[in-house]
Amino acid sequence: MKSWLPIPASSHFSLSNLPFGIISTSTQVKQRPAVAVGDYVLDLSAFAHGAGFSKLAPDLQQKTDVFAQATLNGFAALGRPYHRAIRNYLQEVFREDTPYPEVLKTNNALRQAALVPLSKTQVHLPLAIGDYTDFFAGRNHAFNVGTLFRGPANALQPNYNHLPVAYHGRASSVVISGTPLRRPWGQALPAPGADTPVFRPSARLDMELELGMFVCRGNALGEPIPLHEAEDFIFGYVLMNDWSARDIQQWEYVPLGPFNAKNFGTTISGWVVLADALEPFRTEGLKNEVELHPYLRNKRTDNILDIQLEVSITTTKGNKTTVTKTSSKNLLWSWPQMLAHHTIAGCNLRPGDLFGSGTISGLDAGTHGSFLEQTQGGKVPIKLEGGGERKFVEDGDTITITGWAVGTDGEIVGFGDCVGQILAAFPTVHSQK
Amino acid sequence: MKSWLPIPASSHFSLSNLPFGIISTSTQVKQRPAVAVGDYVLDLSAFAHGAGFSKLAPDLQQKTDVFAQATLNGFAALGRPYHRAIRNYLQEVFREDTPYPEVLKTNNALRQAALVPLSKTQVHLPLAIGDYTDFFAGRNHAFNVGTLFRGPANALQPNYNHLPVAYHGRASSVVISGTPLRRPWGQALPAPGADTPVFRPSARLDMELELGMFVCRGNALGEPIPLHEAEDFIFGYVLMNDWSARDIQQWEYVPLGPFNAKNFGTTISGWVVLADALEPFRTEGLKNEVELHPYLRNKRTDNILDIQLEVSITTTKGNKTTVTKTSSKNLLWSWPQMLAHHTIAGCNLRPGDLFGSGTISGLDAGTHGSFLEQTQGGKVPIKLEGGGERKFVEDGDTITITGWAVGTDGEIVGFGDCVGQILAAFPTVHSQK
Repeated sequence: MKSWLPIPASSHFSLSNLPFGIISTSTQVKQRPAVAVGDYVLDLSAFAHGAGFSKLAPDLQQKTDVFAQATLNGFAALGRPYHRAIRNYLQEVFREDTPYPEVLKTNNALRQAALVPLSKTQVHLPLAIGDYTDFFAGRNHAFNVGTLFRGPANALQPNYNHLPVAYHGRASSVVISGTPLRRPWGQALPAPGADTPVFRPSARLDMELELGMFVCRGNALGEPIPLHEAEDFIFGYVLMNDWSARDIQQWEYVPLGPFNAKNFGTTISGWVVLADALEPFRTEGLKNEVELHPYLRNKRTDNILDIQLEVSITTTKGNKTTVTKTSSKNLLWSWPQMLAHHTIAGCNLRPGDLFGSGTISGLDAGTHGSFLEQTQGGKVPIKLEGGGERKFVEDGDTITITGWAVGTDGEIVGFGDCVGQILAAFPTVHSQK
Repeated sequence: MKSWLPIPASSHFSLSNLPFGIISTSTQVKQRPAVAVGDYVLDLSAFAHGAGFSKLAPDLQQKTDVFAQATLNGFAALGRPYHRAIRNYLQEVFREDTPYPEVLKTNNALRQAALVPLSKTQVHLPLAIGDYTDFFAGRNHAFNVGTLFRGPANALQPNYNHLPVAYHGRASSVVISGTPLRRPWGQALPAPGADTPVFRPSARLDMELELGMFVCRGNALGEPIPLHEAEDFIFGYVLMNDWSARDIQQWEYVPLGPFNAKNFGTTISGWVVLADALEPFRTEGLKNEVELHPYLRNKRTDNILDIQLEVSITTTKGNKTTVTKTSSKNLLWSWPQMLAHHTIAGCNLRPGDLFGSGTISGLDAGTHGSFLEQTQGGKVPIKLEGGGERKFVEDGDTITITGWAVGTDGEIVGFGDCVGQILAAFPTVHSQK
């Protein structure tokens, strides 16, 4: 799809993508919705104000007041047919042969008002997150980590293939890409077999490569979402780094699951790639040998997204090392299956809820989505470019996740980056006063 | 404290209490803040509008616009000194010998506008809940349940006495007292030792007696709350029923904790008893033999609240049986310890966050906060008044929790009731289409 706006061929934000986000600029600090297109963003608040939606069908035009909001929750709640209509309309506006050149292509005033260089924007959390749920759908990750702790014969827990295992995460500490996080303090056992914990900054701080999914539609409490309707509840996707303090987790997680090991921060990328933009990249996922209960049985077989994913670590000296190359097709459970399972007992979802996929890993070296796997539990360090090595993440290190898919036309549908730097632990150790 | 307003001696809402909530009425459906006093509520929106706060210090008066909001979040965020000042002022307004009779006592117009019979109000969720965290601070409960599964020698997990174990719960499905909930569907093992789950409405649906605590103040991400400052983050308390599907939980919880077994609904009482109203009922809790890390060491010893708690079950035939009588002093960890631990890794709290204490149980028969404990894992049924018995909660059953403390002056500081009825499971079993 060619555009009158120059879009570099290497851009993640091709016309086939048009991801949505929330921006501000130094000259206009108010947070507002935008779409990313090449090296620019279209400020949807300014675009709507400048009659940019005037060629849209009148009933759809009426609802564009959602672009005056400071989050995408209102837009998300309008549902997938609406997201599709707006994305299609914006593609038409930006096309080389746009049927509406007067809307933007030849409208210098509106181009001045609404087209902002991406480099001049600050990106904010795209939605107000009600609840955040983290799944464990990366079967290779579950297998790799289970093998480390229990050996390959007992790597997967008995329930693993029967249902998409998940836990509730912490919504307040989900942060936008670029937000630095402090190394967490916590209790941990000083050595295997010890029974008295020490209190220290985490000595095994890890990252986790995940995809995130935002929910656009709610269900009533007590009324499960059937699998065959679940696609309608998906707004779009982001990259996610579910930071994890392995030593804290190991001590605290029995019997109620991870808590402080995870809740100090979860980083997401800022541009939400709409579900429709990723439709061309559906594929089959890992095969599940188990006979599933009907509420989890897919009729379609192409339920998993094939997105290329990479993780790199950058030290304070500026040396950058790619540590992981993998694909999101390494998931056992599809997003519709996660939605169906999350609500089967009656739990209500709300627009803006965030799901994490769980760590995405291959089985081979260099395809693992966590340092825990890459280093075989901290035993085999990763060699860094320019010297040095890492067992886990050290103070000052920056972890960058990126992800993209390439369409049959060569256009890239990408997420940009999900970036987070780890700062030294909070300096004060709290004590009795 | 005698009032010019007749307050029954048996009322939970004495002048020593003055709990805050959100109400609406059939004639005014807008949700608004109120305090409960005897058989009435004072509509704080109408009271503010009618110059009810005119005798309050001017700097405090300015902030009473929070009572125009539809939740208590704004009021909570003003902090404990403000809550104390407002509660003290309202006590003065209602006192028999009020220094300001013209404000309400002799102001018939404002009494008409702002004093509403409790029986004519509908009570709503008091705060918009950001995140909900459920602790496991009831050591007797942990011991009782651990004994059922692993025997008394291994009843408590190794971490239990070292830190307040907790997990993140589901905020969206926290409901106000009186909201019926459907029995959850889910996967469960048909018998001990089975390895293939069945799919059915839960056959072991349980209640859990807890206290809830609302947070009034946030901390910055990465900056833990020191224990000696933690009291300032407590807004107040409610009763909580953390419904639990034991068969679903048993199958799903390894390794990431409870999920669908809990997220179908959590019921709370509507009137938030302010932290200050419960100050007279502080006592020592269960003794912890472990040497705690400094961040969890209390200087004070009277850190646990002594609130009398009762649970009853009412069948569809109207027979009511009291099944539990206990006290909230059966907690190992104090709320300040929970706050300090929740934030020690850097997690940020926000006004409106909700903590659950975990199930509160004694060690003896008739003092257990769950049916699981009362029936020794479903083996010894509870006998009901008027005939019949229960191992777990059946369709149509209503569980009522109540709680109160009695001051040295004989005045009751109580919570009212926390009520929930279980309806039959959602009728449609979802299948492939």
